[in-house]
Amino acid sequence: MKAKNTKAWAGRFATAADPRMEAFTSSLAVDRRLAQYDIQGSVAHCRMLVKQKILTRAEGEKILKGLKNVQRELARGRFPFLASDEDIHMAVEAGLIETIGPVGGKLHTARSRNDQVATALRLYLREAVDEIVRGIEALQFSLAKKAKAHMGTVMPGYTHLQRAQPVSLAHHLMAHWEALERDRARFGDCRGRINVLPLGAAALAGTSLPIDRKFVARELGFRSVASNSIDAVADRDFVVEFLSCAALAMTHLSRIAEELILWCSAEFGFARLPDALCTGSSLMPHKKNPDAPELVRAKTGRIFGDLVAMLTVLKALPLSYNRDLQEDKEPAFDAAETLNACLAVTVLCIEGLEVDEVRMAEAAGADFPAAVELVDRLVESGVPMREAHGIVGRLVRSCLEAGLGMADLSSEELARHHPALAGVRPEELTAEASLAAKRSAGSAAPSEVARQVRRALRRAKR
Amino acid sequence: MKAKNTKAWAGRFATAADPRMEAFTSSLAVDRRLAQYDIQGSVAHCRMLVKQKILTRAEGEKILKGLKNVQRELARGRFPFLASDEDIHMAVEAGLIETIGPVGGKLHTARSRNDQVATALRLYLREAVDEIVRGIEALQFSLAKKAKAHMGTVMPGYTHLQRAQPVSLAHHLMAHWEALERDRARFGDCRGRINVLPLGAAALAGTSLPIDRKFVARELGFRSVASNSIDAVADRDFVVEFLSCAALAMTHLSRIAEELILWCSAEFGFARLPDALCTGSSLMPHKKNPDAPELVRAKTGRIFGDLVAMLTVLKALPLSYNRDLQEDKEPAFDAAETLNACLAVTVLCIEGLEVDEVRMAEAAGADFPAAVELVDRLVESGVPMREAHGIVGRLVRSCLEAGLGMADLSSEELARHHPALAGVRPEELTAEASLAAKRSAGSAAPSEVARQVRRALRRAKR
Amino acid sequence: MKAKNTKAWAGRFATAADPRMEAFTSSLAVDRRLAQYDIQGSVAHCRMLVKQKILTRAEGEKILKGLKNVQRELARGRFPFLASDEDIHMAVEAGLIETIGPVGGKLHTARSRNDQVATALRLYLREAVDEIVRGIEALQFSLAKKAKAHMGTVMPGYTHLQRAQPVSLAHHLMAHWEALERDRARFGDCRGRINVLPLGAAALAGTSLPIDRKFVARELGFRSVASNSIDAVADRDFVVEFLSCAALAMTHLSRIAEELILWCSAEFGFARLPDALCTGSSLMPHKKNPDAPELVRAKTGRIFGDLVAMLTVLKALPLSYNRDLQEDKEPAFDAAETLNACLAVTVLCIEGLEVDEVRMAEAAGADFPAAVELVDRLVESGVPMREAHGIVGRLVRSCLEAGLGMADLSSEELARHHPALAGVRPEELTAEASLAAKRSAGSAAPSEVARQVRRALRRAKR
Amino acid sequence: MKAKNTKAWAGRFATAADPRMEAFTSSLAVDRRLAQYDIQGSVAHCRMLVKQKILTRAEGEKILKGLKNVQRELARGRFPFLASDEDIHMAVEAGLIETIGPVGGKLHTARSRNDQVATALRLYLREAVDEIVRGIEALQFSLAKKAKAHMGTVMPGYTHLQRAQPVSLAHHLMAHWEALERDRARFGDCRGRINVLPLGAAALAGTSLPIDRKFVARELGFRSVASNSIDAVADRDFVVEFLSCAALAMTHLSRIAEELILWCSAEFGFARLPDALCTGSSLMPHKKNPDAPELVRAKTGRIFGDLVAMLTVLKALPLSYNRDLQEDKEPAFDAAETLNACLAVTVLCIEGLEVDEVRMAEAAGADFPAAVELVDRLVESGVPMREAHGIVGRLVRSCLEAGLGMADLSSEELARHHPALAGVRPEELTAEASLAAKRSAGSAAPSEVARQVRRALRRAKR
Repeated sequence: MKAKNTKAWAGRFATAADPRMEAFTSSLAVDRRLAQYDIQGSVAHCRMLVKQKILTRAEGEKILKGLKNVQRELARGRFPFLASDEDIHMAVEAGLIETIGPVGGKLHTARSRNDQVATALRLYLREAVDEIVRGIEALQFSLAKKAKAHMGTVMPGYTHLQRAQPVSLAHHLMAHWEALERDRARFGDCRGRINVLPLGAAALAGTSLPIDRKFVARELGFRSVASNSIDAVADRDFVVEFLSCAALAMTHLSRIAEELILWCSAEFGFARLPDALCTGSSLMPHKKNPDAPELVRAKTGRIFGDLVAMLTVLKALPLSYNRDLQEDKEPAFDAAETLNACLAVTVLCIEGLEVDEVRMAEAAGADFPAAVELVDRLVESGVPMREAHGIVGRLVRSCLEAGLGMADLSSEELARHHPALAGVRPEELTAEASLAAKRSAGSAAPSEVARQVRRALRRAKR
Repeated sequence: MKAKNTKAWAGRFATAADPRMEAFTSSLAVDRRLAQYDIQGSVAHCRMLVKQKILTRAEGEKILKGLKNVQRELARGRFPFLASDEDIHMAVEAGLIETIGPVGGKLHTARSRNDQVATALRLYLREAVDEIVRGIEALQFSLAKKAKAHMGTVMPGYTHLQRAQPVSLAHHLMAHWEALERDRARFGDCRGRINVLPLGAAALAGTSLPIDRKFVARELGFRSVASNSIDAVADRDFVVEFLSCAALAMTHLSRIAEELILWCSAEFGFARLPDALCTGSSLMPHKKNPDAPELVRAKTGRIFGDLVAMLTVLKALPLSYNRDLQEDKEPAFDAAETLNACLAVTVLCIEGLEVDEVRMAEAAGADFPAAVELVDRLVESGVPMREAHGIVGRLVRSCLEAGLGMADLSSEELARHHPALAGVRPEELTAEASLAAKRSAGSAAPSEVARQVRRALRRAKR
Repeated sequence: MKAKNTKAWAGRFATAADPRMEAFTSSLAVDRRLAQYDIQGSVAHCRMLVKQKILTRAEGEKILKGLKNVQRELARGRFPFLASDEDIHMAVEAGLIETIGPVGGKLHTARSRNDQVATALRLYLREAVDEIVRGIEALQFSLAKKAKAHMGTVMPGYTHLQRAQPVSLAHHLMAHWEALERDRARFGDCRGRINVLPLGAAALAGTSLPIDRKFVARELGFRSVASNSIDAVADRDFVVEFLSCAALAMTHLSRIAEELILWCSAEFGFARLPDALCTGSSLMPHKKNPDAPELVRAKTGRIFGDLVAMLTVLKALPLSYNRDLQEDKEPAFDAAETLNACLAVTVLCIEGLEVDEVRMAEAAGADFPAAVELVDRLVESGVPMREAHGIVGRLVRSCLEAGLGMADLSSEELARHHPALAGVRPEELTAEASLAAKRSAGSAAPSEVARQVRRALRRAKR
Repeated sequence: MKAKNTKAWAGRFATAADPRMEAFTSSLAVDRRLAQYDIQGSVAHCRMLVKQKILTRAEGEKILKGLKNVQRELARGRFPFLASDEDIHMAVEAGLIETIGPVGGKLHTARSRNDQVATALRLYLREAVDEIVRGIEALQFSLAKKAKAHMGTVMPGYTHLQRAQPVSLAHHLMAHWEALERDRARFGDCRGRINVLPLGAAALAGTSLPIDRKFVARELGFRSVASNSIDAVADRDFVVEFLSCAALAMTHLSRIAEELILWCSAEFGFARLPDALCTGSSLMPHKKNPDAPELVRAKTGRIFGDLVAMLTVLKALPLSYNRDLQEDKEPAFDAAETLNACLAVTVLCIEGLEVDEVRMAEAAGADFPAAVELVDRLVESGVPMREAHGIVGRLVRSCLEAGLGMADLSSEELARHHPALAGVRPEELTAEASLAAKRSAGSAAPSEVARQVRRALRRAKR
C-alpha cells in the first residue's frame, strides 16, 4: 500500500520539494502520536458529510471502512509511512486513498489541515487531561492514606527550613493534598477550554459547503463549536493553558520530591524509600540514592521549558495559521507524558515511604516547640502580643546561652521572665502539648486534620 | 511618629541586624504597594478579635482608629518609613504602635506575617484581576465597534502571511475578540482561586486562640477559607496562575500589535495610526513610527520573564513559608501594571486606527481569491476533493506562468481544465463573491460575522 | 550476548528495582547518542590504567578489543539493549563483560559514572560545537555570496518596520553576517570551557589509585584537567553556556526567518523562495507557503525552552552530583540538532532566494529616501542639527498633505523651507543618491559594504 | 531651566502626542540610570565633531561646558525632568539647549538615538561587568580564606544528598570557587563583545558627514568599532550574553545558598549564620531564619526571568532598530544590580559562617566512609573492580542488618567477605583515613586541596 510520493498540493508547484526541506519540515516523527485522534476526527467528519449529503451513503461507508483499515494497520505497526509524508494527516489520507481508491480523496471535502490538526490535538489533550486528573487523584489518595496512618506522628513544622512549630505528618502531607486539589480544579477549567471544536473552520474562512459543525461536535463530545473560523485555526491558547497547568503541578511534585530527598538524608533521617525505588552507585558500594524524587525534581525544568517554548512560538505571530504552530506538539506531548510519569512515580514514593516516627518526634520536641504557646499564655493574661513575643524571645535566648530546653526551667525561672508564666508545667511545653492546644480551622489540631483526611478519603471513594 | 529601630522579633537575638543585610532583605521599596490591602486585612482581623473577645471593644476601637490614622498618613505620603522597616507590614504595625501606644502590639495576636502577607497579596491580586478584566472588556468593545464599522471591508485572510482567502476586517478583528474572551474566562477562574482566605493559618500551624476565620473571610469578601494552615502560608499558586493568565493575554496583545505594525508599514499600507499615537525619529525627520504596538509586543517578554521568575522561585521549595516567597511581589505587580497599561494602549490603537479600505480590498482581490470556491464547484459536480484541488492548482500555475488572474480566463480556458468550470463567470471569482459564498457557522460569511459582532456589542452594554 | 539483569551496584540492596521505577529512571532512550563518546572515553581510561600498571597489558588489550567489539555491534544496530540497562554507560559495560568476561569489570577501576558521563557529554558537545561553527560559517558564506551578487540592489532600510533610509541588500545581508560572527566567537569561547577533562574525579572525591589524568586529557584532546573533583562531577555550566549560545544564535536565525517571511509576502513582494523550499495547502490550491523560515522562527522557542529547562535543573542544587543532572542530555541534544538543522535550512533559503530588485528599488525610492541628506545639507550650511530636523520635518509634512514626493518640489518650494535648500536638484533626492553620499565607516556606502563582503569571502576561503 | 514640551521630531507631525501614549512609551523612569553614560558618549562625540571640523572649536566648548552643567544638575538631583521627556537622551539634550541655547542642537549632528542609546548601554554594561567581576573575586577570596581555615575540617561529601565519601570543608568550598572562576572568565569574554562602539551608525545607514569613529572609540575606551551600521543599531546580543552570564552565576550563588540553608538547619547542624545576618519571626519568638541565603536563592528566579524577557524581545524581530529594544534596559539593570547585591551578601554569609567542626566530623565518620577504599584494596589485590564493588556492597548490607559500622567488624568477619580484607584495621576505615588515602590530581587529598587554596589566595593578592 502507498507508493506515490506526490504531495496533495502539488498542482500549483513547478518543482518537487527538496528532500532536505522535507526532512526538516516533516512532523511525522512527532505527530504520529495523533494518529488515533486524527482518525477519530475523520470518522466524525465523514459521518457529517454523509448526513449533509455532501457525500453519498456509499462513499461514506467506503471511507469509514478504509479508515478502520488504516487504523488497524497503524495499531499493528504495519502502516507504511513514507519519508515524503508531511505529517500524520497526509499519511493517513494517502493510506486511505491507497486502500479505497480516489473516493478517499473526498474525505478532505470542506476541511483543511488547519482545522483538522487543531481538532486532533484537542482530542489528544482532552484525553491527556483526563489521565493527568486520574494521576493527581491517585497521588492525593496515596497522600491521604499515608496521612491517615500518621495522624499521631508528630514532626517539626518548618519555616525557612528551621523548625517552627510542631505539626503532625498527616497535617503536612495534607498540605500537599491541597495543592494538588487546586491542580485538579485548574486542569478541569482547562479541559473546558480545550473541549471546543475547531473543525469546520476549514483553512481559516469557513466553507461554502453545507456542513453541520454542531453534529461533528456532538459526535466527538465537544462542548461547543469555535465561534470564529480565523481564531479557530490560529488559536493554541489551549496548549499554553495546558502547559501552564502542568508547570504548576510540577512545582508541587518538585516540592514533594525535595522533601523526600531531605527526609531520606542521613541528617534528617525522617524516612527511607524502599530499595526498589532507589538505585546505587557504580563506584560506591554503600550508596542508596533517592533517584526517583531527584528525577521528578529535575523534570520540573523540562515542563517549564515546554511552557516557555510554546509561549515563545506564539509571541507576535500574526493571524491566522502559520507553520510555526507545528511546534505545538512536542511540548504538549512531552509535558503530558512527563507529568503523568512523575505523578505515578510520586505515588510509588509516597506509598513506599517508611517513616521513622521516633526521629520525627524527637526533632519536633527539640528547639522550643511550645514557644508560641507561651506567647499565647501571656496574651491571654493581657500582655500585648508584641511584648509577649519579646518576653519569650528573651527567655529563649537565656535558654540557648545556658544550653537548656524550656522544659528544663523551673517555675521560678519562668516566673522571672513574667509572673504569668509561673504556673506553666513542663508537660505543657512539649510538641504534643503544642499540637493539642491548637484549635483554629485548618490548623494542626488533630481534630482538624482528621476532618481533612476524612474528606479526602471520602472523595477518593467516589 | 515612629522612631525606634528595634525589630519586633529582637528578643532572641544577641546582635542587631547588619545594615547591609537589612538593605538586602527589606522589601519595603516594593511591597509599599500593599499598604492599603494590609490595612484592610488588619481591620477585618481586629474586628474578629473583638467579636471573639480576644480583644476588648475598647482595644479594638483604639486599634481601628489608629489604623485609619496610619492609612491617612500613607495616603498623604506623610508616613515616615524607616530604613530598618523590614516590610510594609512591620512598618504599619510600628506606625500603629507609635500612634496608639503598646495596645497596638495586640493587633498581631493570633496571626503571623506569613498569613498576613498572603492575605494582602490576595487582596491586591483580586483587585488587579478585576481591573484587568475591565481592560479586556474595553478592548473587546473597541474591537467590536471597529468590526461593526468594517463589516463590509474586505481584506485578505492570511495563513503563513500569504494571502489565503478573503475575509472581512470585521471577521478578522472578531478573531482577536475571541482570544480575549478566553482570557476573560481564564482570569475569572483564576480569581476564584485567589479569593480564598489564608489569614488564621498563623505562622504555619494555626493557633490555639479562639479565632473565627469565616468571619474574617466574610469581612474581606473571600469566598472560602484555606483548608490547611501549612498550605495556606506555603502556597503561591495563585500568583503563578495569575502570571500564566497574564502571559497568555500578552501573547494576544502581541499578535494584535504585530498586525498593527505590519498594516502600518508602507508595504502593507492597510492602516495608519494617528499622529498622537506615534513618535518620530531624532535623526530622520520623515519618520512616523508605531511605537505603541512595538512596545506592547516587546513587553510580552517581561511578562514571560515574570512567569519564569515565579516558577523558578517555587521549584523544589520545601514547605512551608520560606523567605524566597518574598520574591513573589515584583513579578505580580509588574505583570498587573504592564498588562493593564498594554490593554489601555491597545484600546487607543484600535480606536484610532484609520483603515485604508481601498487598499485592503485590492489586496483581497489579487492572487486567486476564489480558488477554493472553484474547488468546491468541482466537488459539488462530483470530483473528489483531492482531484479538484489538483485541477485548480494546475489552473493557478498556468495563470502564474501567463501572468494572468483567474478572472482574465475565458470560459473555454476554464473548461479546458475541467468541464464543470465552463460556466464560471468572472464575477464569481472575486473576493466579494468568495465571501458571500461562505455559509458555515463561524465562517467569514457576512451574516455569521454580523451575528458575532451583535453578540459582542450586546455583551458590552451589560 | 548480555542476559543477566543484575545491577552493578546490587550488593547493598535487599530488593530488586521496581520495573516502573526502572522505566522512569532509565536514560537509555536518550543517552544512547553518547555511545561512541562513552567508548572513546573508556579507551583512553583503559590505556591510562595500563600505562599506570593498574591493569596489566594483557587485561588492557582484552578490554580494548572488547570495546571495539561493542562499538561495532552498536554501529550495526545489533547491540542488545535491555530494559534494565540504566543508561548507556552500564549497557556498554554489561556488553563488555558479556563479551570478554569478568575482566571487563576492571575497566571501571578508579572511575565512577559521575565523572564518566560528564566526560562523554563534554566529548559530544565539543563535537556539536564544531559542527555548529561549520554551519554558522556556511550560512555566513551564503550571505556573503548573496551580498556580493546584490551590491547594487537598493532597498529600504527599516527602523520600526517603517522605511527609514536606503541601504543596499548587500549591506542588509551583511548585518546578519555580523551577528553570526559573534555567534562564532561565542561558541569558540564556550568550546574552551567544554574542553576540560572531568575524568579522574571518580564519584566526587578523586581516588587513591595512582591514575594519570593529564595522560587521559591528552588522549582525548582536552585542553586541561578539572581542578576540583567535587566541582568536576557537579558542574553542568558547559551545558548551560552551550544552550545560551544556541539560544542567541537562534534569535539571529529567527530574525532572518522573519524577514524572509515578510519579503515573500505579496505585500512586500521583495523576494520569492523556490518551490522546492515551500509547501502548499491541503485545501487551498493557490497557496505557496514559506514553511522553512516559519519553522526556523518557531524552533527558536524550543531552544529557549531547553535553556530554561537546564537553568531550572541547576537552580539551588546542592553539590555534588545529583540524579537531577541526568536531565542535561535532552536539552543539549535537542538544541544541537535543532540549531544545526536550522542553520542548514537557512543556507538553503538564502541560496535559493530570488530577489525582485525592481520592487526593492521602487520601495527604496518612495517615502522621502533622502530626508536625512537634506538635514545634513542644512547642517553643513550652519543650521543647528535640531533646527534642520524641524525644517525638513515640516517640508515632509507639507509634501504628505499635498500628496507629493520630495523630487516633485521645485527649487523655489524647497527654498521656501530654507534658503540653503534652493540648489538641491531632484536627482540628489533619490535613494541612490542617498546611498552614494554615505561615507562613514561601516555605513551603507557601497565602498564600505564592498570591503565587508570581501573580508567575509576571504575568510570563507580559508 | 527647560520648559518647552515640543518633541525634537515634531516637524512632520500634525498632532501632539497623546499624554497616555507619552506615559506608556516614556522610558525615563528606567533609563535615568544611563545619564552619566549618555553624557560620557556625548562628550566624546562632541570632541570628534570638533576634531573633524563639523563643529567649530567654540561651538564644541560651549557644548562641553553645557554637558558638564547638566551632569552637575543631575548629580545634585536638581535636573528638571518633564513628563514629556521621552527618554534620558532627549532630556539631556533638552537640558543642554535650555542651558546654552540653539547651539546645543548641534550636538546631535551625525548621530541618532539609535546609535546613541546602544553606546550608553554598552558603557553601562562594561562598568557593570567590571563591578560584577570584582564581586566574584571578593566571593572567591572569602571562600578561599574560609577554606584555608578549614583544611583539616572533615565533612561528608554528598552525592544525591546522601553521604558519599569524606572530603574536607576546604575541598568543598573550593568547588564553589571553581564555578565562580568560570563565571569570571565568561564575564571577561562577554566584556570583550560589549566593548565595541556602535556610535556613528546613525539611524541605521551611517552618515554622509565626515565623522571619525575610531577617534570616538579611543576616547571611550572601546576596543573596536561596529563593522556594519545596520547591525550596530539592531544588535542587543551583548545584553543577552550579559544576562546569560548573570543567570549562570546566579545558579552558582543559589547552590551555595541552598547549602547554607541546609547546613543551618537543626537537622544538619553543620553551621550557624551570625545573628546579624538572620531575621526572626513576627509570631514565633524562638526563630532565627537564614533570610539572606533564602533571598539569594529566590532572586535566581528574577535573573532567569530577565534573560527570558530579553530573548523573547529579540525573537523574530526584523532589522534594524525597533522600539521593542527599549525593553532591554530593565532586565539589564535588574540583573546587574541583583547579581551585585547577591554577591556581596554571599560574601557576608561566607565570612560570617560559624562551622560546627565536631558535628561535621561525626557525620563524615558515620555511614561507611571508607567503603571505596575497601573496594580499592580488593582491586589492588587483583579482584575485578565490578566484583570488588559487589563484595563490599554485601558487606555493607550485612552491617546495616546488624546495625554495625565497618570499624566494628573483626578481622575474621572482614575476611569472611574476602580474604584480602583480612588485614584491614579499624583505623583504616575512618573518614580521616579515606581522605588521607586520596592521591589523584584535584582530589580531596589534603595536599591537592592545599595547592588549590594557595593558588586562589595568591591570585587574590594580585
